Amino acid sequence: MSLTKSIRVLRVGQRYVRDDRTLTHLCLVSRALGAESIYLEDVEKDILRTLDEVNSTWGGSFRAVLGEPWKKVIREAKAEGRAVVHLTMYGMPLPEKVEELRGLERLLIVVGGPKVPGKVYHDADYNVAVTSQPHSEIAALAIVLHEIQGGEELKRSFGKSRLRILPSATGKRVLES
Amino acid sequence: MSLTKSIRVLRVGQRYVRDDRTLTHLCLVSRALGAESIYLEDVEKDILRTLDEVNSTWGGSFRAVLGEPWKKVIREAKAEGRAVVHLTMYGMPLPEKVEELRGLERLLIVVGGPKVPGKVYHDADYNVAVTSQPHSEIAALAIVLHEIQGGEELKRSFGKSRLRILPSATGKRVLES
Repeated sequence: MSLTKSIRVLRVGQRYVRDDRTLTHLCLVSRALGAESIYLEDVEKDILRTLDEVNSTWGGSFRAVLGEPWKKVIREAKAEGRAVVHLTMYGMPLPEKVEELRGLERLLIVVGGPKVPGKVYHDADYNVAVTSQPHSEIAALAIVLHEIQGGEELKRSFGKSRLRILPSATGKRVLES
Repeated sequence: MSLTKSIRVLRVGQRYVRDDRTLTHLCLVSRALGAESIYLEDVEKDILRTLDEVNSTWGGSFRAVLGEPWKKVIREAKAEGRAVVHLTMYGMPLPEKVEELRGLERLLIVVGGPKVPGKVYHDADYNVAVTSQPHSEIAALAIVLHEIQGGEELKRSFGKSRLRILPSATGKRVLES
């Protein structure tokens, strides 16, 4: 199966204390669920090494882009015709927007941290809520990636890789190549 | 809308270094996406206070149960006819199992950390993979809760609450009662 959409992810509004575990989850979820890259403003370099290791072990060419100011990322995305989808508990319910979102081919999904500037709400083409309850930007991103791609992302192949899992009902089966 | 299923979540295989941010995400995702409780073996008491605050502000009666050994939780779940669904990248692909899982009314969803004992794989009624790629137990839990409930969990009401969000296309609207 090939995924035809081009989906990028942008993280804005990080905490003062860098929360590298949350960022690692956001990177790996973006990669596993069909995004091509994630923009992170400020992050430990360790995350790049982790992603390199994951790509070389499990396939694909997902990448993190560091140091681009979020305003520039959003501006350039809009200039190239990408729809900007901001995930926020204050937004419109995902079930009301999902059909429209599925029709988009090129997206920038903006994932907020605790402090998201008001400009993000105004610049976004869509402010979308995965429930109006507080939970997790990792979970919200996962459900939106899943819904936008209609579940097809779960069947995706990552091409050549050193390790590959053979699905198993009761244990662990891993092929090494 | 009422959710008719009874879904509980169990976390097993935590790290030596307690990873309370991941646990907080797991708790809040379980609550927001329709589970009734989560079992955590060992956790900072702070998490209980966070959940109390979230319930009193945003509604519902989700709770965390601390200190129950995971073997006991699984044994008791099976004894009361609950299906045990273990989420693991080594399991069977979710798309192959989702219809069967939707037919279940009472579930215990087991979320692994980095170290999951082999007994969990054998005791589970289902070992299910949300992709065979490494990513995030928070994301895997979110997608499985979402799929098992057919998206209905996104429309759920949390009943009486101090604050309630009025969905908005461009900003933040919150009702206080």
